Amino acid sequence: MIVTLEEIVARLGGEVAGDGSIRVSGITTLDAAGSEQLSFLANTKYRARLASTRAAAVIIAPEVLKDCPTAAIVTAQPYLYFARVAQWLQPIARPPAGIHPSAVVDGAVSASASIGANVRIGRESMIGDGVVIEANCCIAEGCSIGADSWLHAGVSVYAGCRIGARAIIHSGVVIGADGFGFAREADGSWVKIPQVGRVLVGDDVEIGANTTIDRGALEDTVIEDGVKLDNQIQVGHNVHIGAHTAIAGCVGIAGSARIGKRCTVGGAAMILGHLKIVDDVNISSGTMIAKSVPKPGNYTGWVPFLEHAEWLKNFSRVRHLDAMADKIRALEGRLAELEKKS
Amino acid sequence: MIVTLEEIVARLGGEVAGDGSIRVSGITTLDAAGSEQLSFLANTKYRARLASTRAAAVIIAPEVLKDCPTAAIVTAQPYLYFARVAQWLQPIARPPAGIHPSAVVDGAVSASASIGANVRIGRESMIGDGVVIEANCCIAEGCSIGADSWLHAGVSVYAGCRIGARAIIHSGVVIGADGFGFAREADGSWVKIPQVGRVLVGDDVEIGANTTIDRGALEDTVIEDGVKLDNQIQVGHNVHIGAHTAIAGCVGIAGSARIGKRCTVGGAAMILGHLKIVDDVNISSGTMIAKSVPKPGNYTGWVPFLEHAEWLKNFSRVRHLDAMADKIRALEGRLAELEKKS
Amino acid sequence: MIVTLEEIVARLGGEVAGDGSIRVSGITTLDAAGSEQLSFLANTKYRARLASTRAAAVIIAPEVLKDCPTAAIVTAQPYLYFARVAQWLQPIARPPAGIHPSAVVDGAVSASASIGANVRIGRESMIGDGVVIEANCCIAEGCSIGADSWLHAGVSVYAGCRIGARAIIHSGVVIGADGFGFAREADGSWVKIPQVGRVLVGDDVEIGANTTIDRGALEDTVIEDGVKLDNQIQVGHNVHIGAHTAIAGCVGIAGSARIGKRCTVGGAAMILGHLKIVDDVNISSGTMIAKSVPKPGNYTGWVPFLEHAEWLKNFSRVRHLDAMADKIRALEGRLAELEKKS
Repeated sequence: MIVTLEEIVARLGGEVAGDGSIRVSGITTLDAAGSEQLSFLANTKYRARLASTRAAAVIIAPEVLKDCPTAAIVTAQPYLYFARVAQWLQPIARPPAGIHPSAVVDGAVSASASIGANVRIGRESMIGDGVVIEANCCIAEGCSIGADSWLHAGVSVYAGCRIGARAIIHSGVVIGADGFGFAREADGSWVKIPQVGRVLVGDDVEIGANTTIDRGALEDTVIEDGVKLDNQIQVGHNVHIGAHTAIAGCVGIAGSARIGKRCTVGGAAMILGHLKIVDDVNISSGTMIAKSVPKPGNYTGWVPFLEHAEWLKNFSRVRHLDAMADKIRALEGRLAELEKKS
Repeated sequence: MIVTLEEIVARLGGEVAGDGSIRVSGITTLDAAGSEQLSFLANTKYRARLASTRAAAVIIAPEVLKDCPTAAIVTAQPYLYFARVAQWLQPIARPPAGIHPSAVVDGAVSASASIGANVRIGRESMIGDGVVIEANCCIAEGCSIGADSWLHAGVSVYAGCRIGARAIIHSGVVIGADGFGFAREADGSWVKIPQVGRVLVGDDVEIGANTTIDRGALEDTVIEDGVKLDNQIQVGHNVHIGAHTAIAGCVGIAGSARIGKRCTVGGAAMILGHLKIVDDVNISSGTMIAKSVPKPGNYTGWVPFLEHAEWLKNFSRVRHLDAMADKIRALEGRLAELEKKS
Repeated sequence: MIVTLEEIVARLGGEVAGDGSIRVSGITTLDAAGSEQLSFLANTKYRARLASTRAAAVIIAPEVLKDCPTAAIVTAQPYLYFARVAQWLQPIARPPAGIHPSAVVDGAVSASASIGANVRIGRESMIGDGVVIEANCCIAEGCSIGADSWLHAGVSVYAGCRIGARAIIHSGVVIGADGFGFAREADGSWVKIPQVGRVLVGDDVEIGANTTIDRGALEDTVIEDGVKLDNQIQVGHNVHIGAHTAIAGCVGIAGSARIGKRCTVGGAAMILGHLKIVDDVNISSGTMIAKSVPKPGNYTGWVPFLEHAEWLKNFSRVRHLDAMADKIRALEGRLAELEKKS
């Protein structure tokens, strides 16, 4: 796809600085861009890199215009603009509609959907218009997959789960496996609690490779519209994740946690169960959220790394923190006594 | 399935309070239960919720009987009772016996087993009576799967592994991949140690989605009877997990760790290798177990989260803990000197 | 395979002590070895175990020769020697060449490759000589898999990714899923950044079960030669891992991190994005690397576990560390005043 800068601006806003008739055929980094490509400067801190780019034009913020040796599209948010241009100029080719002969399909599949090799679709499942289901996916009974969703190879969806429109679900994702629910016998053995809820996934959700979302125990696990989940995330049963919340890789969310809208959760954070996080909370990577967060803001709890010998020396003290605090209090008392006397 | 309260008590124990001829057709939460359903109150703290339920009857502890507006089944452990009722009233329908024509089966499959679409079963593998293997599972050569076990879609079992009876294995589980074993060359490169042990899984084990259990290096990795593993757990080679131990999601267990019976391990905990944890140990979420635990009890080690600015202020001090302890000691000495003089 | 000690030494170096004509048929632990097997003593600390072995011969370090009751192969590095012997004596049988009739292959497959049941190989993908691709793997379009690589059942490789020679890739691995890249709209919703880079995996790489390696955003994600990745690792987009680096299970590596050569990373460590770790860095288990590591060495940052009550008492103080430091400084000042006076 080849377009002029003027055509881009007509569609996506912003202003052209320089020759608007310049044609570009794609978008990439300042270093990699060739003379027929567009590029972008997301962070004004790196403005010096503009000098050496061979790009035909660059998407920039207004304050770096004077440093830009090429034609430019000027916008307040160059990174967001880049995302929109990239989606438009470099659309991903969808495989042709139709059901591969090796697929085993008992459900109802739209004529415009594409069903890959060795896919299994169970009874009473509904696959919407334009959906792509790649090879070796298994959709059990009674599921629904909304229009234009894309399931990459090897996704498993358990019975009764619902996925909205325009989802992107990566390989190895498991949606709707049983939550971890057991009652304990007197002898320490466990009795399984049947997990009869579903997983309900909204529209415009992306779910990263090998992420798992458990079905609810009695009620449903809910992922609202626009949620973005990275790889290797574990979402426990009955969890509720609010719209447009983004969660980075390796995060664990225990059962019945309720996370608000527009939150961000850093990689390898852990959220314990049966707690509530309000809207607009940002949780740092590696942080354990062990109680509810009733107020928007940024929350953190992890250990800075040290050279091993330094760490050993300092962390051997952690178990004496309480005693240290007591010693300080005692010192304060004794000192006050002395000061009274002097 | 519709039963009377009397029938339930006759089968599962407890006592009816009120009309034992009341018929119920299922069990759910106090809020969701309709007038033909049973419900339960697991935690007496929430007894006020009994007032508004529309349930036909409620499973309760004796001490809340006076607050219960409906008929009741009275038992010392309502949650455990609920689990038993739910299993009985809401049994999961097993797919019909038989081998799907698309499955590629070289092993021996019981006539009462159900083998799904595109399943692969290798030579000399034995699939027991009543086993369910859902679509796209791969069972390699020389494996055995015990009676009434259920493998959900997309499970991989490597050669030679054994799974006992009544296992529930969720999608994406990998059993028997090579452990992580290498010897190092002088130049820093690695020579693989062949991993020739097996994975032996006992009876009544449940394994959550995308959990991985590596085969032993020279000996076997062993998961004893009744162990319950949540999703996304990593079990290294030669690990031994004792009977009825339950492990929550995202836990990592390094090679040759030995975990006792009836232990519980919270989510995202990490257990290092070549150590031993005795029976009846409870490990908190997010805790790193870096040495053996020789005594039953509850063990914890994680960082409480703070507002980011508070965390930054306090954790910048962690690397000075040793110096702080030295300063306190110095203060104590100087103060003692002064006290002597005064 | 049966060989004499002399034949082993002729091939792999070291020296025989005792009868070099002794024949051995395999290698295992000191406890398990029978009278026709070889064993090894990796750690001289356990030399007492030599006394009771029934092994035909043992691989040992020179300093324990006097304690060895059997014939021996003497070498400075018994564990490395064991690895080499094991690879030679116990080679893994590769499945026969050929394409299973149920596989759906549109790419180019070497005649010496073995393609399992229900495998999918996309257009313009190249499968090299001697490659094994087990059941239910999906290789998308335009990929290449180098000679003698082995993909276990259920691996997914997205379009355009390249894997070198002699790779071992375990079940559930996902290579080339989209990285986690979004620009944010003013209303908090997210616009996807197309992920158009590839994953390039070098030669002699092993990747553990359910590990995920995301494709680059605009550039490529690179795993250099000889890298060893354990299970359940997450590698973000644009990450670069240097040759012969070994990473244990459950590690997360965020986008655009650059890790040097010959590094080791312990289990469940977390490496944040856009940072650089030089060659020959060792990171302890459970450690969060939140800034660049410019110097080789060992780095650590985790919380030692305590009995729960002890932990509670001491960690309630962590949020007062800054105040404690202030109190110590105040005490020092007041004490200096008193000392001046006295």
